Amino acid sequence: MGMVGGGIGAFIGAVHRMAAALDGEIELVCGAFSSDPEKSRLSGAQLYLPPERVYGSYEEMILKEKTLPIGERMDFVAIVTPNHMHFPPAKMALENGFDVVCDKPVTFNLTEAKELAEIVQKSGRLFALTHNYTGYPMVKEAREIVRSGRIGKVRKVVVEYPQGWLATLVEATGSKQASWRTDPTKSGAAGCIGDIGTHAENLAEYITGLQITELCADITAFVPGRKLDDDGNILLRFNNGAKGILQASQICVGEENNLNIRVYGETGGIWWHQMEPNTLELTLIDQPKQLIRTGVGQLSAAAQAHTRIPAGHPEGYLEAFANIYRNFARTLRSRLKGETPDPLYTDFPTIEDGVRGMAFIEAVVAASASNEKWYPFAK
Amino acid sequence: MGMVGGGIGAFIGAVHRMAAALDGEIELVCGAFSSDPEKSRLSGAQLYLPPERVYGSYEEMILKEKTLPIGERMDFVAIVTPNHMHFPPAKMALENGFDVVCDKPVTFNLTEAKELAEIVQKSGRLFALTHNYTGYPMVKEAREIVRSGRIGKVRKVVVEYPQGWLATLVEATGSKQASWRTDPTKSGAAGCIGDIGTHAENLAEYITGLQITELCADITAFVPGRKLDDDGNILLRFNNGAKGILQASQICVGEENNLNIRVYGETGGIWWHQMEPNTLELTLIDQPKQLIRTGVGQLSAAAQAHTRIPAGHPEGYLEAFANIYRNFARTLRSRLKGETPDPLYTDFPTIEDGVRGMAFIEAVVAASASNEKWYPFAK
Amino acid sequence: MGMVGGGIGAFIGAVHRMAAALDGEIELVCGAFSSDPEKSRLSGAQLYLPPERVYGSYEEMILKEKTLPIGERMDFVAIVTPNHMHFPPAKMALENGFDVVCDKPVTFNLTEAKELAEIVQKSGRLFALTHNYTGYPMVKEAREIVRSGRIGKVRKVVVEYPQGWLATLVEATGSKQASWRTDPTKSGAAGCIGDIGTHAENLAEYITGLQITELCADITAFVPGRKLDDDGNILLRFNNGAKGILQASQICVGEENNLNIRVYGETGGIWWHQMEPNTLELTLIDQPKQLIRTGVGQLSAAAQAHTRIPAGHPEGYLEAFANIYRNFARTLRSRLKGETPDPLYTDFPTIEDGVRGMAFIEAVVAASASNEKWYPFAK
Amino acid sequence: MGMVGGGIGAFIGAVHRMAAALDGEIELVCGAFSSDPEKSRLSGAQLYLPPERVYGSYEEMILKEKTLPIGERMDFVAIVTPNHMHFPPAKMALENGFDVVCDKPVTFNLTEAKELAEIVQKSGRLFALTHNYTGYPMVKEAREIVRSGRIGKVRKVVVEYPQGWLATLVEATGSKQASWRTDPTKSGAAGCIGDIGTHAENLAEYITGLQITELCADITAFVPGRKLDDDGNILLRFNNGAKGILQASQICVGEENNLNIRVYGETGGIWWHQMEPNTLELTLIDQPKQLIRTGVGQLSAAAQAHTRIPAGHPEGYLEAFANIYRNFARTLRSRLKGETPDPLYTDFPTIEDGVRGMAFIEAVVAASASNEKWYPFAK
Repeated sequence: MGMVGGGIGAFIGAVHRMAAALDGEIELVCGAFSSDPEKSRLSGAQLYLPPERVYGSYEEMILKEKTLPIGERMDFVAIVTPNHMHFPPAKMALENGFDVVCDKPVTFNLTEAKELAEIVQKSGRLFALTHNYTGYPMVKEAREIVRSGRIGKVRKVVVEYPQGWLATLVEATGSKQASWRTDPTKSGAAGCIGDIGTHAENLAEYITGLQITELCADITAFVPGRKLDDDGNILLRFNNGAKGILQASQICVGEENNLNIRVYGETGGIWWHQMEPNTLELTLIDQPKQLIRTGVGQLSAAAQAHTRIPAGHPEGYLEAFANIYRNFARTLRSRLKGETPDPLYTDFPTIEDGVRGMAFIEAVVAASASNEKWYPFAK
Repeated sequence: MGMVGGGIGAFIGAVHRMAAALDGEIELVCGAFSSDPEKSRLSGAQLYLPPERVYGSYEEMILKEKTLPIGERMDFVAIVTPNHMHFPPAKMALENGFDVVCDKPVTFNLTEAKELAEIVQKSGRLFALTHNYTGYPMVKEAREIVRSGRIGKVRKVVVEYPQGWLATLVEATGSKQASWRTDPTKSGAAGCIGDIGTHAENLAEYITGLQITELCADITAFVPGRKLDDDGNILLRFNNGAKGILQASQICVGEENNLNIRVYGETGGIWWHQMEPNTLELTLIDQPKQLIRTGVGQLSAAAQAHTRIPAGHPEGYLEAFANIYRNFARTLRSRLKGETPDPLYTDFPTIEDGVRGMAFIEAVVAASASNEKWYPFAK
Repeated sequence: MGMVGGGIGAFIGAVHRMAAALDGEIELVCGAFSSDPEKSRLSGAQLYLPPERVYGSYEEMILKEKTLPIGERMDFVAIVTPNHMHFPPAKMALENGFDVVCDKPVTFNLTEAKELAEIVQKSGRLFALTHNYTGYPMVKEAREIVRSGRIGKVRKVVVEYPQGWLATLVEATGSKQASWRTDPTKSGAAGCIGDIGTHAENLAEYITGLQITELCADITAFVPGRKLDDDGNILLRFNNGAKGILQASQICVGEENNLNIRVYGETGGIWWHQMEPNTLELTLIDQPKQLIRTGVGQLSAAAQAHTRIPAGHPEGYLEAFANIYRNFARTLRSRLKGETPDPLYTDFPTIEDGVRGMAFIEAVVAASASNEKWYPFAK
Repeated sequence: MGMVGGGIGAFIGAVHRMAAALDGEIELVCGAFSSDPEKSRLSGAQLYLPPERVYGSYEEMILKEKTLPIGERMDFVAIVTPNHMHFPPAKMALENGFDVVCDKPVTFNLTEAKELAEIVQKSGRLFALTHNYTGYPMVKEAREIVRSGRIGKVRKVVVEYPQGWLATLVEATGSKQASWRTDPTKSGAAGCIGDIGTHAENLAEYITGLQITELCADITAFVPGRKLDDDGNILLRFNNGAKGILQASQICVGEENNLNIRVYGETGGIWWHQMEPNTLELTLIDQPKQLIRTGVGQLSAAAQAHTRIPAGHPEGYLEAFANIYRNFARTLRSRLKGETPDPLYTDFPTIEDGVRGMAFIEAVVAASASNEKWYPFAK
């Protein structure tokens, strides 16, 4: 694996590296960690990389690595830069024969996303998007429960992603994390909705297998001086007639990273909270609520395949993230060997999820500005 | 206290009686428990009332009791009939000199509610509406925290009231509770929104001290054959610029009576769940979350005055309901003695809350039918 | 009902009155609320009792009431004084033909308890002891689950009752509640163990249907200046070979009234916490944990008969306490009518529980002082 | 790192590898994964190790690796075999100049442990014991809170480690995990007490900074046919006068891996549960309970240094385990460079903890067999 971005001080780059390393199936072999070559060099040294494989730019990395023999060169590129810098390295990597793992949202805007989808298709390369929350075993169990029909036809979905860390003008205090996320030239058309709202949208569609077809949005920049939305309340309508609510916020003081979802069907309901990810609540009509737990009892093959340790030994965010990487690596390895990959491990978000996420962002921004009640959301 | 409605098999009548009895300050002395005189008689006998004070109709009760000397006759009337039967006995009681406690929503429609408000005013009588959830000590503590400014200006409110008991066509199975609530001739223009959505609206405005000024609604009757909404998703805008979400539902399988509210201000957030009512969560910015508990530490005078037993001895729904009755009774007693009532005990919902609730119902129904995004909500 | 004790400022007297009043089946008609006649008079006036039925002493009350015709006089006596004042009024009431409800622990010492048991038997009167925690519907459900064999033979029981309110020398600050509970001349041989340890013992034996046969105890008075134990750690052995732990404490800062119990059998386990009393956790081997909830689904007849309101409307301490009173009153009423009482309502703690509780206190105190590891506990 | 044990099918070996890999600071370079050379070879191949560094025995590994130049050879040995096979490779590694990470309990018996302690001292090598639960940031925060005096002098400690996976005779079903743990020739003198009771003991002493001086134990083998204890209830006395309870069990149906601790001091109490490890509850006297959370607000330097990702992104068991490895690696690296290690990263369990754990096991087994109430526990 070669990394683009993720130099000293970055949050998500370190996450990608830990996630990739966890299972001992992926090795970081090179990187272009910063657009500042000196910073890239320092970052690479901290990561115990040989100097010759720490590059000053992603272009250099892709071109030089391409010259190495297969087996020696990086097998794929991981892109962990801010949103506006996803498209260029992804395009270049794919066009030079490298598979790609990319952070979300996939690009700066929908146009880029669609273009990238075409490049992926033309290249025949694998492309994984790190909508990491779908990597949790209990999220997979939730999807299997819905698929199995145990809760009946879905009627209502409530998905929330409240955070509180941007309740003040943090971007004015020198925070690197806050700065690019609230900067329209780096983050894109939306702030909160792009950063975390897309996770909520992705999670709702992943678990239910449904698609949002219309939405009604009210997004707000609450903090004076902020350039992008830091809060959004959205009504949803799904393609099977279900209705829903999606809210995301970064100004909810006291909320840490409280992604959660409730799905109510005709005969059952499910609840999942990211901050206690190893529990999935399930209630079938007129029965006691069940606490389905990672590692306990008769779980789906999908849930079991994404669990590493026994019940009661909590697995968290990095383990879920690692599931995306491990599945990508296993699928890639099968492909390199000319084998059919095990379908249990081919489940990771792709460019299709990326395009849908960008379409969601643009729909929400437009819907919020509109006086029409319902705005169409179609990829 | 004389009761209208609440005969054998009724749910809310028994609740009112337990709530009124709890503190030993109110005695049930007579009743017209059913429009069926025989059923009223049987109900009265079960309640150990002397036969001569069990009446065949509320009209009879009001007229007969009026002839008794003060001190012997009922001091006030409690109305616990289905919605369409609130207005007539309330009007007659007030116009005959009796104070009134009435279940919610206050009337069948907004017109009646406004008329009743005029009657209350003209009569000079006390009128309490049993929006019982505001009787919980931790709801009062929440209001005091907002008032005190500890969480700063309110930015976002999320209030929910999901239930699951109407996920199937229960009204077709002979359930008395389900039947009238889903019958437009008894319940009014709305089902779920009137039955429980109004509690959510009342709670949000009570705690925040704000008023909802605009809303965008999507209400649904999910269960085939149902005549009124059993679910509603609503975006809110408040008079201080805050935004919010209100959802109520009776088709959420697995939800019991999960009224809950989150209020996020500039410098803090609060959380309260009716099903664990003795805990109020408070997070001030950059500080650990605090669990404020009934009976623990330095609570507001309001919270203390509505708590009966020491910390850790759970108080529940009936105790909160009883707080409404006790406050009404104490205020009435002070008034009868010509004294100024203790302001700690004058806090109970009034006809003003009732009118606002009916306006909310009508606004939501109209908003949901409208293609306009925002619908005004003003009393 | 006539009350002995429970004057102004008492905690448990008010609890008994609310519990007795809740269901409208019991009326407070007289009382000897304090050994100070003036204080008794004031207390009675506050409770709206006619002055002629507010007595200066329990002796006076019992003798005067006895002269009233049946139907007019009190039907039974409720004793809510400190421990050392349970026996005399109980004995006198029983010997004068009155049934009795008595607070726990039943007497000052085991000798008195055994004597009282004989008096109860000889008198043929009903005697209820307010081990109120067994009044919770989910405690009854737990007992039914164990009885049904669903969790198999019980192997291990962990019962805890930590409180924190006596972590400092509160008795030196004028607290009436703290003073008598920490005074050996009023409380008896034990402090914490008598006040709350007996509740834990009673709960464990009630739910499991087992009897403790041996115990190993380590009790402590942690707070300097305290005369009785404020903490106890106890190992248990039961008559079926099960083992267990019982701990009670009043110096656990941060604990409110955290009575809880876990029972593990060969094929299942159950968990119950008094502070969230409407949930009973049940796990059957290799199955997901179930949250059994008051009012939800297929509960035992016993649980249903002790529930007043629908699921999700929390019932608390007073409702559980009221179940003891209601059952006592219904059983008494059946008996007065010469009918066989409904077995659903004959379940309340009796003098047998009282004797066992006193034996427990004496065994724990002796065991703690002993160097022998195991001390026999037999009534 | 070279590994001894942890071949295909082992649980704890995989945990050690993931924990070591997570931070990118440790590389697995060789191993003797099984006493069966073929199984070792297959395991090494699965781990992408070059065949020449997969050894047929730990003796071979140590001797061969020693011949490699420093920088190429393994830097330290990780021992992840069953208990009875800890001592021989540890001794040999240390005596051949390798630092050691060893799973717990440290040896088969106390005699071996003391001998190993001497070997460690003589060798001058680093020795880490993976009492991994002390690696959690909130455990470190708890220790800092106690150290700071915020909860005052500790009075009572309750530490529990209930599991349920051995509620039936699992060792008869071919489970490798169950078999050696319940076999006295591999596990040692105790089953449950050695496997998990030692974690509880270690956690209690780590957080409080106290030492257990006396104990009273009742251990049991509940499952028919089991050769070692599967349950233990223990009363504790500490060197400052505090008292406590320690219980561990593997027959508690429904318990996963529920290690938890409560520490009550004169002015505060703390609560921590391993299954929700990112929350530490703290109550200071007469104040609301605070939920101290990984990543939120003003945490101790120790807690911060052991946290990888922002608040609300749950970190779990592997991350805590990785903290032990990372600290060991950083301390080792400093030492290799001749630098003073950063004291934030020198905190990992050592041979001293190992000796104390073995002494605990032997004391509990002896105490349980004794009729004396109190048994001394001194290293």
